[in-house]
Amino acid sequence: MPLHPRSRVSSVSGLIALAVLAACGGRNGNQANQAAGGGWAGGDVVSLMQARGLAEKDVVAALKTYTPTGKHDEYYTFASGGHGGNLIVIGVPSMRILKYVGVFTPEPWQGYGYGDQSGDVLRAVKKGGNEITWADMHHPAFSETGGDYDGKYIFVNDKCNPRVAVVDLSDFCTKQIVGSDLIASEHGATFVTPDTDYVVETSQYPAPLGGVYAPIEEFDARYRGAMIFWKFDKQKGRIVEAESFAIELPPYMQDLADCGKKVSDGWVYCNSINTERAYGGILEGKPPLESGATQNDMDYLHCIHWRQAEAVVKAGKTETIAGMRTIRLQTAIDENLLAFVPQPKSPHGCDVTPDGTAIVVGGKLDTHTTVYDALKIAAQMAAKKSVGKDPYGVPILDYQGSIFGQCEIGLGPLHTVFDDKGFAYTSVFIETVVAKWSLKDLKVVQKIDTHFNIGHLVAAEGDTVSPDGRYLIAMNKWALDRFAPVGPLLPQNFQLIDIGGPTMTLLYDMPLPLGEPHNAQMIKADKLKPIDVYKPAGIDPITHQVDKDAVELGKERIERKNDGVHVWMTAVRSHFSPDIVRVKEGDVVHLHVTNVEQAHDATHGLAIGGQNINVSLEPGKHCNIVFTANKAGVYPFYCTEFCSALHLEMAGYLLVEPK
Amino acid sequence: MPLHPRSRVSSVSGLIALAVLAACGGRNGNQANQAAGGGWAGGDVVSLMQARGLAEKDVVAALKTYTPTGKHDEYYTFASGGHGGNLIVIGVPSMRILKYVGVFTPEPWQGYGYGDQSGDVLRAVKKGGNEITWADMHHPAFSETGGDYDGKYIFVNDKCNPRVAVVDLSDFCTKQIVGSDLIASEHGATFVTPDTDYVVETSQYPAPLGGVYAPIEEFDARYRGAMIFWKFDKQKGRIVEAESFAIELPPYMQDLADCGKKVSDGWVYCNSINTERAYGGILEGKPPLESGATQNDMDYLHCIHWRQAEAVVKAGKTETIAGMRTIRLQTAIDENLLAFVPQPKSPHGCDVTPDGTAIVVGGKLDTHTTVYDALKIAAQMAAKKSVGKDPYGVPILDYQGSIFGQCEIGLGPLHTVFDDKGFAYTSVFIETVVAKWSLKDLKVVQKIDTHFNIGHLVAAEGDTVSPDGRYLIAMNKWALDRFAPVGPLLPQNFQLIDIGGPTMTLLYDMPLPLGEPHNAQMIKADKLKPIDVYKPAGIDPITHQVDKDAVELGKERIERKNDGVHVWMTAVRSHFSPDIVRVKEGDVVHLHVTNVEQAHDATHGLAIGGQNINVSLEPGKHCNIVFTANKAGVYPFYCTEFCSALHLEMAGYLLVEPK
Repeated sequence: MPLHPRSRVSSVSGLIALAVLAACGGRNGNQANQAAGGGWAGGDVVSLMQARGLAEKDVVAALKTYTPTGKHDEYYTFASGGHGGNLIVIGVPSMRILKYVGVFTPEPWQGYGYGDQSGDVLRAVKKGGNEITWADMHHPAFSETGGDYDGKYIFVNDKCNPRVAVVDLSDFCTKQIVGSDLIASEHGATFVTPDTDYVVETSQYPAPLGGVYAPIEEFDARYRGAMIFWKFDKQKGRIVEAESFAIELPPYMQDLADCGKKVSDGWVYCNSINTERAYGGILEGKPPLESGATQNDMDYLHCIHWRQAEAVVKAGKTETIAGMRTIRLQTAIDENLLAFVPQPKSPHGCDVTPDGTAIVVGGKLDTHTTVYDALKIAAQMAAKKSVGKDPYGVPILDYQGSIFGQCEIGLGPLHTVFDDKGFAYTSVFIETVVAKWSLKDLKVVQKIDTHFNIGHLVAAEGDTVSPDGRYLIAMNKWALDRFAPVGPLLPQNFQLIDIGGPTMTLLYDMPLPLGEPHNAQMIKADKLKPIDVYKPAGIDPITHQVDKDAVELGKERIERKNDGVHVWMTAVRSHFSPDIVRVKEGDVVHLHVTNVEQAHDATHGLAIGGQNINVSLEPGKHCNIVFTANKAGVYPFYCTEFCSALHLEMAGYLLVEPK
Repeated sequence: MPLHPRSRVSSVSGLIALAVLAACGGRNGNQANQAAGGGWAGGDVVSLMQARGLAEKDVVAALKTYTPTGKHDEYYTFASGGHGGNLIVIGVPSMRILKYVGVFTPEPWQGYGYGDQSGDVLRAVKKGGNEITWADMHHPAFSETGGDYDGKYIFVNDKCNPRVAVVDLSDFCTKQIVGSDLIASEHGATFVTPDTDYVVETSQYPAPLGGVYAPIEEFDARYRGAMIFWKFDKQKGRIVEAESFAIELPPYMQDLADCGKKVSDGWVYCNSINTERAYGGILEGKPPLESGATQNDMDYLHCIHWRQAEAVVKAGKTETIAGMRTIRLQTAIDENLLAFVPQPKSPHGCDVTPDGTAIVVGGKLDTHTTVYDALKIAAQMAAKKSVGKDPYGVPILDYQGSIFGQCEIGLGPLHTVFDDKGFAYTSVFIETVVAKWSLKDLKVVQKIDTHFNIGHLVAAEGDTVSPDGRYLIAMNKWALDRFAPVGPLLPQNFQLIDIGGPTMTLLYDMPLPLGEPHNAQMIKADKLKPIDVYKPAGIDPITHQVDKDAVELGKERIERKNDGVHVWMTAVRSHFSPDIVRVKEGDVVHLHVTNVEQAHDATHGLAIGGQNINVSLEPGKHCNIVFTANKAGVYPFYCTEFCSALHLEMAGYLLVEPK
């Protein structure tokens, strides 16, 4: 790889470097001298650079990313965990992972889905008659106000079992998971309207609407796509399912969506592939999907007027399918909500510029990004001007009459983000570069090599109305040879690139150790104001209210009721009270546990042997746990967070007497 | 915190620094100049240091840890994921997390426990009549040969539901989980004998042996501890349960263990707390455990002659309890396998020196580490010299006659590791420092501040017969104010310390984003030789053999049999074959899927809608998946690993026809 640094120290600057750090050492006494030489022959920076194979550009990159103890990062990047089903919080520029947030997958360290009320959030939506305990998360989206990140919530999706989750950034906890059986898979999610009125979720692989069966031979007639608009209540911080709606779409593979902003506010755009409507059938003598789906030179950019759709829904022109108010395709056509514009060769990526005037689409098998003109599209739709219709009667707008132009960018352009100086940055998969180009003249100004299989890329607030420039991360799916080997399943590789100045420079390679990040969002750190503790003690984190069974010190008790044995328990360094719980085999046990501490980071865990239970009790948090004591025996319970010198002694016994 | 760096640049060395990097810039042209200044006013390193608040010692630390693209780390650290139930692989000195390895907790990104044969490993051991899908992992241990890490396997434990897992370092996958109902909880696990004949697992909270019930009022008479010796077959890479055995112990809280080596080979040592035999009972008028368990000035170091115990087992002097051959306590006493030596004030930590002559124990409520003499202990036991007996008849050896001496180390010493120069490094919890002291004269030579709640610490091969010195990691459980805030549940904080020279210096603060690492082991990178792909294609990773249902290209097929529908499927960029699977509602479906690729990193995933299934198909890997198609409908399946430009098109349909 061109990025692979050479271990090379010039005699000239190397000697000056030596001089400097010797000087540093001189100032700091033994410590710095030691630090400079510690563990290596010699004791100067030249030998340090040589020993570690650092080139001068590496020294600069190190100083731009190294974040000393106690210093905080400038930005947070929230990356999807892909099929890990969790959310990854990364500090930029240090590229240190600050937290994994459990969303669709149980997470025992966070006590998420391991016995307390968080399990109700995790298991709210079933699919195919089954409980689903993982997800294929793709596109996180911050809540926005006026097209800018407001730092309140982040939304994430599940491609495999269509669901959307709401994560509250006040405590970095998942609060809600919703899903509809209208669609059988999705991809173009989550994307928010500029004031987060709606969270957009779009199907990918067509299927009969509503989860019913239809023979695949009836693909054209009975398989469909759809775009769901989940209504979000910003005050409550919850999606309101009853106020949500959907629009039926033809059985193409709708791909990535983005919402209009400013001049294009009220619109949403979505690219598509497989207008050929291929569905594979290799063993049945048909071509594989990847060739069947790549026959056409053009697919369709979907242009949807969601604000007008809202009015159509209010007017009651919907049909309810699987509980979702759905605007049927013919209604969408009749009401002039939907039009198509041709897109060259297996389009991918769909990104609206900060000023809202343009939509940038890549072509996986093309060498251009195409820049569409939002106003020209709106004008043609208003005038009901079209050059034809697709097989389902959707108007097709004139291609040349809908674009600003194209940028000759290289083979396999995918996604595009923006900076504060009028430049766009596009990931180019086959060429494995990030291309920087000007939105003014659609000319490339620089390309920087990345490692293999770059997919999405993210820039600091780079999809808002006011990007920051500053940092960009190339999300590379392959990592071979980049890191010390870890067996056949490799991490992914985030490459941090400095876009703060005229020239892009690589700063850091970061392995992703768990999950395959698909897309991410990067937000200025000062926009987040998370809480330190739950105040007052006894808060249920799902409702942020004091729980009715919250327990105060001195009020601990055990009562046998009709529905089982209730235990009101407190946790405080270094004991649980009660610490002996006596029940009978077969009893249903209700534990109401409050961590009464209010000191920052004074978290306790409560693990119970044999019950598959571990809850996390951050300061002030209250957990309600219900389980059946199936088997007579003696089950120790104890604190799973190292909380004090006597942490090991923070334990008790669940005594399950035989019947 | 004293560690908090000051943003200070001396005029003198700062100016020299400016000179250097200007020189670097000169040599590298625009790029380096830009890199140095990119995004900041100014354009030199002084302004860079000022902008980022870097002191000169930070510059040195940055150069000692920054690892450029393509350069590999020198060491791997394997840290337990605590109650995350997974294993964390970290590169040193970059402190980048290279991989999370699923062990006791399902992990969809790795396809671990989400539909294929790995679920049989994960769910092999039930507890309390329940399936257990998490763990509280504490102490990883590499397999050893002659007391040195051999890089073949790593073992991990579950404190909450006593189990031990075997992870194969050839592919970083979990191969076996075993557990015994003899004990109800553990802590002193895993620790290996010098040639990995046995993996040691020791109980923590006493309970009746064998998982039976006994009233807690019969604690002294019927509750017990035990140490299990799991027999390991190095050739097969598996624990052999039938050849394993245990030794019954009094109902104290056995804590941490370490195996003798060289002169003390054949022995294992284990400290203990709560010789008071307190068990809490706060609501029942008794003192909380943490005060009941800290009344005595001395507890007992357990000294166990495991080689002799092996002979006693061979002689058949055991009783089988819950399937485990157990040497009863009286037999252990009669056969002279077990003796106690007093230990001052709430002992914690138990670490044998590299030469095997001494055992170092801390005292949580003490100010000393006590250094025990393995040979004096052995001599007293051989001569059957004791100064008394505990309430269970276990001989107590003379304290003064069993120690080298004590080191005055500070308040709250816990764990100790070693370097190659005769120094020991002890974590001191209450004082929050790492103390470096000489094994020769038991004098402290330096203390370095750490952040809050330091627990374990790990040094490069620092618990083997030949430590490397070089690096040490302080594992701090609290992180308040160290990192950008992430809500009430904080990461932990690993602090990398350079111990390569005469003075310890802090290099890096690393947040732990998922799980609470408890202990870790650090191994030289060149000792691991993991495979890149499974060869030939069709390998079952559990057995490392070609699976009987492995599928070759062109041999794909679907057959209905008595036990359901069998599908022999291949995965290759960019399709599955077959890509259409037709079954009837209620059918049991058997998918036999081989990734026929042999290219490094050409991993595919297979996710199936509605079935809670996602498997990871690394190159050459074969998965066997069984599920019941519960509900009629159309379920897309697709590749979950971004594998090619046409990855989105790598999809198919599971068609479940109504009955």
